[in-house]
Amino acid sequence: MVRETRPIASYTHEVRVRYAETDRMGVLHHSRMFVLLELARTEMLRRHGMTYRQMEDEGWFLVIVKASCAFKGPAHYDDVLAIETTITRVTQTRIDHAYRVTRKSDGALVGEAETTLACVDREGNIQRIPDGLAELLKG
Amino acid sequence: MVRETRPIASYTHEVRVRYAETDRMGVLHHSRMFVLLELARTEMLRRHGMTYRQMEDEGWFLVIVKASCAFKGPAHYDDVLAIETTITRVTQTRIDHAYRVTRKSDGALVGEAETTLACVDREGNIQRIPDGLAELLKG
Amino acid sequence: MVRETRPIASYTHEVRVRYAETDRMGVLHHSRMFVLLELARTEMLRRHGMTYRQMEDEGWFLVIVKASCAFKGPAHYDDVLAIETTITRVTQTRIDHAYRVTRKSDGALVGEAETTLACVDREGNIQRIPDGLAELLKG
Amino acid sequence: MVRETRPIASYTHEVRVRYAETDRMGVLHHSRMFVLLELARTEMLRRHGMTYRQMEDEGWFLVIVKASCAFKGPAHYDDVLAIETTITRVTQTRIDHAYRVTRKSDGALVGEAETTLACVDREGNIQRIPDGLAELLKG
Repeated sequence: MVRETRPIASYTHEVRVRYAETDRMGVLHHSRMFVLLELARTEMLRRHGMTYRQMEDEGWFLVIVKASCAFKGPAHYDDVLAIETTITRVTQTRIDHAYRVTRKSDGALVGEAETTLACVDREGNIQRIPDGLAELLKG
Repeated sequence: MVRETRPIASYTHEVRVRYAETDRMGVLHHSRMFVLLELARTEMLRRHGMTYRQMEDEGWFLVIVKASCAFKGPAHYDDVLAIETTITRVTQTRIDHAYRVTRKSDGALVGEAETTLACVDREGNIQRIPDGLAELLKG
Repeated sequence: MVRETRPIASYTHEVRVRYAETDRMGVLHHSRMFVLLELARTEMLRRHGMTYRQMEDEGWFLVIVKASCAFKGPAHYDDVLAIETTITRVTQTRIDHAYRVTRKSDGALVGEAETTLACVDREGNIQRIPDGLAELLKG
Repeated sequence: MVRETRPIASYTHEVRVRYAETDRMGVLHHSRMFVLLELARTEMLRRHGMTYRQMEDEGWFLVIVKASCAFKGPAHYDDVLAIETTITRVTQTRIDHAYRVTRKSDGALVGEAETTLACVDREGNIQRIPDGLAELLKG
């Protein structure tokens, strides 16, 4: 069932930490890291000529089934983060990504994360990843 | 067109400021005040025997067409806010609310706000507020 | 170093999914699950007679060093979630929690999660968990 | 006391609506518009050679004392919004901004907003806007 296990494609997205994303401790709230990861993987898709919006408009949805992050150092307000996203596995119904997040100014490691997405239809039933996307993900 | 201009109903909802709602300044981020106002007005609806979820399930949507807030003092992490919500006007297609937000522990004024909601259908077209809701709001 | 490995204390916090916490798919955005978990573990602390705000005021900060969640089913707008939080391990500097999130109305499993917190001072240096808190966590 | 009443400077910031910023209705949640406005005005500052982070590091804080928005049309997921920000007034302690938000693809009006910021010190006491910033704002 697993079609691919080596890293397939990789893309680094840069994003600046917004004021509203910080918390009382003065750093990026950990929950918002997952928003930035989502941003990074959808921008990666865009770079490959596809948008996630298009996918949803055509009836394919990618839902998160697993997400984890090891937080290695703080990300402060206005820091530019470089999120290196790698597709690590694509099966008929799932896509795994790995992420390495560093602060651009000094290269400090901020976090390492992994997510698993499943492809579902409008009703939430698991379905095969559309061929076009699967091809594209396997570069 | 305006059916009602005096305050119709009023309800005070209490809600505690979450850590993730604070920002680098250590206080409730101003954008999140609008989330709490939304919470207050939907809880008010629930107290009147209706839920906003039900409304949407039946095809009526209330969209924000105007929102404003005067911020009078900081709300800190873990503060309990008392949000007094008043329906100030109901027309055939719009509902106006006014809000007075105070800190519960000492009564300090945190903010004063106003919002205008319009009733739309699934496609976003303005429609009359359903009779049941209109009755209830003017209760 | 590990002082405790069996479950120490457990607490179930109930929280309703807010409109602003849903996304275009109509369900709780996965990033916001981590906000709810934070809420659950701080409310657990409150039930044990301590507030996290107090801790921070006294110079102890708990930062997330690891967080993961397996999403088992959607949580919709207005669903009441029951978040059962268990302290699974307390070391001199770290606290592990496990969470089981279900929908209250039908008991459906929404997610299973784990977090690791580290105790740091105002400058972010690792420090021992204060004795009072350690006692309290070990029930 | 009012030093300036004509529009002083204007800057258009473009930002793409994130998935996590949409809600169950499929559009940008109204509360998040205020996050985007904040982004627009801080990016405007950056274009003028100053960062808000720098300001805070030097002990000046700008807090929101008033914010309002008229929502004119929906902003969907992945839409690029053009936020035209204008400084409309600068007094010794306050700065007013006006915003016009349009969808880039077709120029559709999404919202019109206004905010008032006050300059405070670390303790929240009103203080005069630093000369450097005042000069720059009146550019």
